[in-house]
Amino acid sequence: MRNTRYKTHEIAKLAGVSPASVSRAINHPELLSDESLEKIKSTMHAMGYDLDEIFNKEPKEIILINFPHGTNPFYEEVIEGIISSADSNGYYTLLNYTRLDENNIEDFIKMVKVAKVKGIITLSQVPSDLLNMINAVVPVVQCCEFNERSTLPYVSIDDYMAAKNAVKYLIASGRKKIAFLNGPKRFKYSRERLRGFLDALSDDDISIPDEWIMHVPHIEYQMADTLISRILSDDNKPDAVFAASDVLAAAVVNRAVYSDLKVPDDLMVIGFDNISLCQVVRPSLTSVHQPKHKLGFTACEMLHEKIKGKTLKVNEVLLSTELVIRGSTEHQ
Amino acid sequence: MRNTRYKTHEIAKLAGVSPASVSRAINHPELLSDESLEKIKSTMHAMGYDLDEIFNKEPKEIILINFPHGTNPFYEEVIEGIISSADSNGYYTLLNYTRLDENNIEDFIKMVKVAKVKGIITLSQVPSDLLNMINAVVPVVQCCEFNERSTLPYVSIDDYMAAKNAVKYLIASGRKKIAFLNGPKRFKYSRERLRGFLDALSDDDISIPDEWIMHVPHIEYQMADTLISRILSDDNKPDAVFAASDVLAAAVVNRAVYSDLKVPDDLMVIGFDNISLCQVVRPSLTSVHQPKHKLGFTACEMLHEKIKGKTLKVNEVLLSTELVIRGSTEHQ
Repeated sequence: MRNTRYKTHEIAKLAGVSPASVSRAINHPELLSDESLEKIKSTMHAMGYDLDEIFNKEPKEIILINFPHGTNPFYEEVIEGIISSADSNGYYTLLNYTRLDENNIEDFIKMVKVAKVKGIITLSQVPSDLLNMINAVVPVVQCCEFNERSTLPYVSIDDYMAAKNAVKYLIASGRKKIAFLNGPKRFKYSRERLRGFLDALSDDDISIPDEWIMHVPHIEYQMADTLISRILSDDNKPDAVFAASDVLAAAVVNRAVYSDLKVPDDLMVIGFDNISLCQVVRPSLTSVHQPKHKLGFTACEMLHEKIKGKTLKVNEVLLSTELVIRGSTEHQ
Repeated sequence: MRNTRYKTHEIAKLAGVSPASVSRAINHPELLSDESLEKIKSTMHAMGYDLDEIFNKEPKEIILINFPHGTNPFYEEVIEGIISSADSNGYYTLLNYTRLDENNIEDFIKMVKVAKVKGIITLSQVPSDLLNMINAVVPVVQCCEFNERSTLPYVSIDDYMAAKNAVKYLIASGRKKIAFLNGPKRFKYSRERLRGFLDALSDDDISIPDEWIMHVPHIEYQMADTLISRILSDDNKPDAVFAASDVLAAAVVNRAVYSDLKVPDDLMVIGFDNISLCQVVRPSLTSVHQPKHKLGFTACEMLHEKIKGKTLKVNEVLLSTELVIRGSTEHQ
């Protein structure tokens, strides 16, 4: 609450204190002596202010974002989206990196209670029984990665279609030897993108060696570099790589250029997320754009509804993606 | 607290409930009916367990990291360092992006009280009067960026010496036309690195045009690209650029290569932080390595001491940096 609602200088003058003291009295009364506080309160009362409304006001409520720690810059913009909705709905946003499992869920729920958290947005997949345990205490909305077995609301993208369209673009560009550098198998997005990848290939009767489908254990540049080096040093190499993240795709482009392969002529590369890294890599990266800010914003709007006790009109939201074409698939 | 401290199966058998119920009773009693809970408690009492210690235990305490939101991946590893100390000292770590100022400090302090936060680590510079207001409520330790006018403890690096040494390396490599792409002026690190940069030049009687000292308003690739494009298109261009962040240095390398300048022959480039991006850029980036994990870890150890009411042996810690040489300054 800003002080502009109060005639600070006038109150100060009448109470015989400094304007700073009046401001403190309103916003931070514990920093004043009882005597000064009393003087200011009685002056304000005499001036007609509603003391109850001013001095007994509720603090902002807290929402918590649970998200996977790591160097994946994808989340930055999703979090910005959450915070911009949280700010406008009057919440304080805190973040937490705990990867929730059976061993730490009790501690997590205790923390939620201690910290008086009013609602939670999860950005990584949480087992559905754990989601239910949390949701029994405060409302939960899943954002980006979600658990398909849970009935709790989510906002995400259609990973299947996004991957399928990206691979269809490679095929339409004349490529048939397409490899897939995917994220860890445990993620739903990874399974869905693999399904889209395989369906795009089988729609055109394209078959590829099994080893061209790779999974990194973490979204990390070095791991991708190790995996792709092996594939690119074979005699039978792919002429295109679809990667489930821009960080992975960046490793592919650099390894290709290092191995004297021309991108896009010898090897086309498509990434996923469309983060700023796409423009750092040379040639710049074609990528599947995720509406990152909107994903976060929408999730927080839904959480706000749930915190207010309303029933959500739509429980499951899938936002659309688009392929942003750059130098790694087309001369520019 | 793990269930392994209890003979879960034995208690379950004697109380006539499932082992899962015993686990719930201990960790999450509100999920059980009063009747089941009572049955388990009396069984455990009969078995000789100390019910008070088990059922009235304190939840973990919470510490908060206040850090600048943005896409600077430098902070990831600092935060990992904080969390690894926090975990081993039994704290829950929450994070918060609020850029603290006079308008939001009251709200922030209210949140700290509501959420029962026990200590705070700040990763960006906070005005010293605001630091004091927070420290009057819970202990504060500054990490990385700190306020020189504050007497509160900090862990940081010697930015002056780090910058001076980097520039001296460029001079020793035969470069005299050295530009500086610096961070925003409001940061202490930026002022200290500028001082180191200027002193290194003046030690060798080198003078450069004023416009070769540039400040980006945010650590952002695109902004760096805009600034450096102008300098590199001049007839009189630098033969080396020192950048206050790897993200900025990446933009310099790419813009140079795009402008048909050879890196390092025509232009040497040094970044700062030594994040993983250094290896994504081609040629790879020489960079000032910051002990990121140790910065965070040390700050949290100090905070733990303060929370326990101890007096810190050392209030001001400066960790050392080193220059990691890569392809942007030396053929490899």
